[in-house]
Amino acid sequence: MIDTPSLVDQYCHGVLRTELGLGTFEARLAHTEGPPSPGTTLFDTQTGFAVRRWCPPLLGLEPHCPPARYLARRRELGVLEASRRLLRGSGITTYLVDTSPPGDLTGPGEMASAGDARAHEIVRLEPLAEQVADTSGTVDSFLANLAESVHAAAAQAVAFASVAGARHGLALAPEPPGPGEVRRAAGRWLAGRRVGGELSDPVLLRHLLWIAVASGRPLQLHAGLGAPGPRTDRADPVLLTDFVRATAGLGTDLVLLHGYPYQRHAAHLAGVFAHVHVDAGAALVRTGARAAAVLAETLELAPFGKILFSSGAQALPELHVVGARLFREALGRVLGTWVAEGAWSAGDAERVAGMIAAGNAHRVYGLD
Amino acid sequence: MIDTPSLVDQYCHGVLRTELGLGTFEARLAHTEGPPSPGTTLFDTQTGFAVRRWCPPLLGLEPHCPPARYLARRRELGVLEASRRLLRGSGITTYLVDTSPPGDLTGPGEMASAGDARAHEIVRLEPLAEQVADTSGTVDSFLANLAESVHAAAAQAVAFASVAGARHGLALAPEPPGPGEVRRAAGRWLAGRRVGGELSDPVLLRHLLWIAVASGRPLQLHAGLGAPGPRTDRADPVLLTDFVRATAGLGTDLVLLHGYPYQRHAAHLAGVFAHVHVDAGAALVRTGARAAAVLAETLELAPFGKILFSSGAQALPELHVVGARLFREALGRVLGTWVAEGAWSAGDAERVAGMIAAGNAHRVYGLD
Amino acid sequence: MIDTPSLVDQYCHGVLRTELGLGTFEARLAHTEGPPSPGTTLFDTQTGFAVRRWCPPLLGLEPHCPPARYLARRRELGVLEASRRLLRGSGITTYLVDTSPPGDLTGPGEMASAGDARAHEIVRLEPLAEQVADTSGTVDSFLANLAESVHAAAAQAVAFASVAGARHGLALAPEPPGPGEVRRAAGRWLAGRRVGGELSDPVLLRHLLWIAVASGRPLQLHAGLGAPGPRTDRADPVLLTDFVRATAGLGTDLVLLHGYPYQRHAAHLAGVFAHVHVDAGAALVRTGARAAAVLAETLELAPFGKILFSSGAQALPELHVVGARLFREALGRVLGTWVAEGAWSAGDAERVAGMIAAGNAHRVYGLD
Repeated sequence: MIDTPSLVDQYCHGVLRTELGLGTFEARLAHTEGPPSPGTTLFDTQTGFAVRRWCPPLLGLEPHCPPARYLARRRELGVLEASRRLLRGSGITTYLVDTSPPGDLTGPGEMASAGDARAHEIVRLEPLAEQVADTSGTVDSFLANLAESVHAAAAQAVAFASVAGARHGLALAPEPPGPGEVRRAAGRWLAGRRVGGELSDPVLLRHLLWIAVASGRPLQLHAGLGAPGPRTDRADPVLLTDFVRATAGLGTDLVLLHGYPYQRHAAHLAGVFAHVHVDAGAALVRTGARAAAVLAETLELAPFGKILFSSGAQALPELHVVGARLFREALGRVLGTWVAEGAWSAGDAERVAGMIAAGNAHRVYGLD
Repeated sequence: MIDTPSLVDQYCHGVLRTELGLGTFEARLAHTEGPPSPGTTLFDTQTGFAVRRWCPPLLGLEPHCPPARYLARRRELGVLEASRRLLRGSGITTYLVDTSPPGDLTGPGEMASAGDARAHEIVRLEPLAEQVADTSGTVDSFLANLAESVHAAAAQAVAFASVAGARHGLALAPEPPGPGEVRRAAGRWLAGRRVGGELSDPVLLRHLLWIAVASGRPLQLHAGLGAPGPRTDRADPVLLTDFVRATAGLGTDLVLLHGYPYQRHAAHLAGVFAHVHVDAGAALVRTGARAAAVLAETLELAPFGKILFSSGAQALPELHVVGARLFREALGRVLGTWVAEGAWSAGDAERVAGMIAAGNAHRVYGLD
Repeated sequence: MIDTPSLVDQYCHGVLRTELGLGTFEARLAHTEGPPSPGTTLFDTQTGFAVRRWCPPLLGLEPHCPPARYLARRRELGVLEASRRLLRGSGITTYLVDTSPPGDLTGPGEMASAGDARAHEIVRLEPLAEQVADTSGTVDSFLANLAESVHAAAAQAVAFASVAGARHGLALAPEPPGPGEVRRAAGRWLAGRRVGGELSDPVLLRHLLWIAVASGRPLQLHAGLGAPGPRTDRADPVLLTDFVRATAGLGTDLVLLHGYPYQRHAAHLAGVFAHVHVDAGAALVRTGARAAAVLAETLELAPFGKILFSSGAQALPELHVVGARLFREALGRVLGTWVAEGAWSAGDAERVAGMIAAGNAHRVYGLD
């Protein structure tokens, strides 16, 4: 039996601080555009079934109890106590928390204390640029403040994250844009922008990525069919190849988040380029009972020292639980089968499990 | 043991009324461009092996008997009796039948009577437009007759189907084309067209899709690497994202047919957009012994209320049998394994099986 | 138990003749751009684990022994004796050997004698054209010598191979380029080229493919995410569809090599076009313990008479061993499971195993 006693969740968000009803809870189970189809419910998904499998026992109920009963028990305990029980039952000992706005979720400090764990901050680049734009009067001040903000963030955060792929697609021009090009793009964007306006200009997205690369902090790039976005048809990580090649040898690690259903493509990049790493986890929360099959595809081409667990969870501590439990069970099943078949030695399997669960994240993010 | 006592086949064609020899039967086992390679036979495919597994017992022979023996028995019974035995042995209780030309296949009425089942019509858009073009003298009459024909079809059919993806690729411009654009495209097409000429003009394909969307009937879109066509390199359903987004909230359901090998991409769209549904079945006929593995990939991201069985069968009642049997066995095995592992409750598995086999189709197509 | 007593390796390279240390051996386990990431090793990959599983016993050691111990034993035996033991333990009885430069690997004759097997030559087109360019003074002499060289190669080699996909991407314009176009492209290339310069001009790549097609020898096309190259983002074999359609019916077979992770797409082309065949093997060396899962995806759409084993091995005889052993075990497991489930008959499974292992290669390459 292969186990992973300690888990570093290399990418997640905080949890909501408010009580949830059946409808508001359901809405957080998946990223959709608009409400569910009439006659259907988001509880009837792999994520919904996985929540019903793993979470009720942590609140003293039977697995697979009806959603309404689970929600009633959750409210009975109160959101703080329920979150505490769930997070402490997840097996996660370190959380790396994306703290991007809107800010209604708990931050690293609250995650650490609720989960009896350690926590560190991940800064998402695009919201940071939007905050800077909200408070900068001119192109010059925007660009100076942007560089300053990224620099300041690098001093306290363990990593940067970017959603440039969902905003513009992953086929970004690889080279850093020139200063004049950046100034013109900033001028156009600021002139047409209202407070809170989203950054999707490709020149500024690339400029932001290159400032982050220069900081030396690991850069996490969302890839694959995750959260909805205008360019989910350009989400295949092989589209990043030229950018990846352009950033090789600079000393900054790239981490491809999520990746599904292109996990094999992401693993290929991790196999070819020394500085590329891949996530194994965020897709499991969405694919539930299929977690072992999905995880196994990442394990085809990716070197085992380049794969890192994450839950990708957001808003509901149930998703942190599900991410961690599905990952541990899937990893144990996949590696255990290979040991039983004689393909891997038991010692290698134990060692690789520890690397993916925590060791690789410790090395890449410099955690103690 | 999870079972599905009743199956709605949400997309199939009728069957041939003529006796078939070994060569003419073989040619209907797959969609190819040209004859099989010398030294090979289409019986040596997953479809061929699945036919030999499931069909001989329905005609009183041993499973896996040689093709020549099976064909001899089929001719001995006669095509009508053989079709009757096969269709009644499939387990399908309702057929939704694409009645597009050339018209040498049985229609819904004959399918119902041969199969002791109910049957409804699906109207394919492109052949409808071609028929209208064959009988319309001017651009004005073509456009008026086209609107009228689609309107009339909507009154009697349960759904529309489109092969715009195979003809032009799925990356269609999302918005409805303007009236002038449509008139010009119709003029060009009609001027250059001989009777029977295929519609592949992208403006007219989109115009047709939008007329169908306006009718409110569910619209079935062929996606994935199915039948050969000029643009099978543009068959990934994520290319449809902009069209899907443009049709959201209008009250018309979209159903992505086939989808393989992009079944995960199709399931993603069904997860994100309320009006998108996915087929689970047509790919199984082609992948045979791998049916459970292929079906399981659809079950990763697609909400369980958005997945519908079809056989996609055409010409040979053997393909209806194989589609139904492979689906039932695969679904039973996949869901049964998840129940055995504790990932799903037995009650949920039974409920979901019934939804995919028949319940979702009843809701989407308004069957009784 | 399904077995394959004889294997034709339809695509591999020779092996190194020099002794290897831990680092030089590791560097040959995978195709990477640059050295491994600090803190990781290429032994911690599926390929590394598969080598440690299958090869130590052939040199008298325990499976899964540490890499350093294996390398010490390898040096103790000497490279010639180690290669001899490994190749003879692989189960491969015929090697088709890509003899492209740089020429530090053993050729077909040495492979035959070391492996106690038969061997034939595969000529790779692009290096052939580069050699011709190195020795031709003018455009006229280059084009004449190129045609002559391909013609001469066709007389002795069993097949041609091309990496046009990795150099330019697989979405090549399908028609043969015209003479004037070829002359202009040759003039540009030769004028800007230094000795040894790589051919990546799309017109010349296509010209070369069409000369090879005219020879009638089977043409092997690298596809999928294999060796690094500038255009790995254009490696999906469905991009070849127009070229495939243009070469149908000319009497020349195409063989899609590698294909992973697009093995389903490659299998689709083999299903639709009589002259297209697919490789099953080269991807297995890279995916190790996942070999059965990867192989099974090829077996979905590809007619069983169109699938051919290869190891894709290069430089290390360990990779020939791993390719052959993984393939035999995977094929036996996949087909054996289908027989156990009743999906296939035992006789069909034996027959298909023999076809994929050797029979199809005998037919396609005209071996004996």
